[in-house]
Amino acid sequence: MPEGQNYDPKIIDGRSLSKKIESEVSSKVQNLKDRYNITPSLSTIVVGDDPASKMYVKLKHKACDRVGIIAEDHFLSEDTTQDELIELVHSLNSRDDIHGILVQLPLPEHINEQKVMMEIDPLKDADGFHPQNMGNLLIGNEEFVPCTPKGIMTALEEYDVGIEGSDVVVVGHSNVVGKPMATMLLNRNATVSVCHVYTSNLNRYTVNADILIVATGVKHLIKSDMVKEGVVVIDAGISKEGDKVYGDVDFDNVKQKASLITPVPGGVGPLTIATLMQHVLKSAQNKI
Amino acid sequence: MPEGQNYDPKIIDGRSLSKKIESEVSSKVQNLKDRYNITPSLSTIVVGDDPASKMYVKLKHKACDRVGIIAEDHFLSEDTTQDELIELVHSLNSRDDIHGILVQLPLPEHINEQKVMMEIDPLKDADGFHPQNMGNLLIGNEEFVPCTPKGIMTALEEYDVGIEGSDVVVVGHSNVVGKPMATMLLNRNATVSVCHVYTSNLNRYTVNADILIVATGVKHLIKSDMVKEGVVVIDAGISKEGDKVYGDVDFDNVKQKASLITPVPGGVGPLTIATLMQHVLKSAQNKI
Repeated sequence: MPEGQNYDPKIIDGRSLSKKIESEVSSKVQNLKDRYNITPSLSTIVVGDDPASKMYVKLKHKACDRVGIIAEDHFLSEDTTQDELIELVHSLNSRDDIHGILVQLPLPEHINEQKVMMEIDPLKDADGFHPQNMGNLLIGNEEFVPCTPKGIMTALEEYDVGIEGSDVVVVGHSNVVGKPMATMLLNRNATVSVCHVYTSNLNRYTVNADILIVATGVKHLIKSDMVKEGVVVIDAGISKEGDKVYGDVDFDNVKQKASLITPVPGGVGPLTIATLMQHVLKSAQNKI
Repeated sequence: MPEGQNYDPKIIDGRSLSKKIESEVSSKVQNLKDRYNITPSLSTIVVGDDPASKMYVKLKHKACDRVGIIAEDHFLSEDTTQDELIELVHSLNSRDDIHGILVQLPLPEHINEQKVMMEIDPLKDADGFHPQNMGNLLIGNEEFVPCTPKGIMTALEEYDVGIEGSDVVVVGHSNVVGKPMATMLLNRNATVSVCHVYTSNLNRYTVNADILIVATGVKHLIKSDMVKEGVVVIDAGISKEGDKVYGDVDFDNVKQKASLITPVPGGVGPLTIATLMQHVLKSAQNKI
């Protein structure tokens, strides 16, 4: 990442924006404590020993610390049964002192993720993956929605990117980014195309995009000849080679044509976590 | 509509296909009665005096009669309160002899439709509008889903239209057709573009579509110069002028270029109703 990127007017600086969001959350958390004696809290569950999962949860706990949210963790062994996990979720659902619940994905193969998501109280659904919240998203009631696309929407709004009537291309059609992202954009009256690994002519779509949002995990999938001048590029992809982290966009070259672009790291990642903080705050505010 | 359209190989004959579906439903209904003494039943609710609503519900009741599903109706006065309506929904939820519940839309303005949909038992949600069912659709678990897009999927499959990797354009982004339709197509790995009234260059999208699905209610919005040779056209629109009914597609001209096309009437409409019958059957089967 280039030095001094914060001052590059082309860069959507996810770190700065997430600091701003966290600062807003922090003062609202303080207000909840002072006025209502409510301290927002997040309970996280990790099953098994996946180092990436542990790292992500650690980042989330650190964010909680920064904004004054209480974070408690539950590390369960790899051989935890689905019933045991659901039992824990139910006990967290029933605890008044817990406002947000987050089950870190992926879960071990013997556990059905969607069955577990379904058991989280929709009002404590910090990640926005409960079907009821997903369905409300689809019909335009965005309450708790997946954090990555929500963070991206926040960035687009913050950087005054016009959505209504714009031509947006989303690359990737996952349940956690692509499909909810497309839905949020449709709810705001963008024209939305969703491409993915089955798309026969990706270039034909991307070259016409006013806004291009990529979440595939394929290193540098998007080259500069695939975008038009002035495009806004959001890179929600991440892949690792050794210690190096890459996005889905060939940043240095695509940046030449883009009017705005997110770096990796320091773009979408921090926004996802800041959005999670907003969700836990909202869950706690619902208790007033 | 031309005489003898059933024999035109370009026509997706919604009436014939819906008869086939209803015949399958009918024999399964009989089986449920014979083996389990369960007679599937649908309870419909209309609030107010909208003639179109009454007509649609009548068509649904007739379909129930054809397949052996018991249909009961509830006609409530225009000044029914939201609480009264929800009370009726709750009473139907708790009745073991009712398997499907359908609240005909639109509801009077003083009633929040989404709040009412939310109160229907998701397992009796014949229309597939409950947020939980919508959310399951979004994450790829299609159980009870909106009947019009589901009926369209059935037609595409029946006519062996390849979905995976195809370029599909959906025109219209409503909660009942456009958004769930796009989601179903993404779940089947089509590349999907969703256009609507805010789209600045509709033609640029439609000319590249392998499959074009239109649900806007704008008479003859789609002209033949907007489609490519060989396109599959699905017209889910309907508008009325006097006694005449029009689709969203300039049928006679577009048909010249299409490889398959649905007429209006006799295309998507009957498929919607046949899908509703499948849903009521499925709700009853879940009781076994």
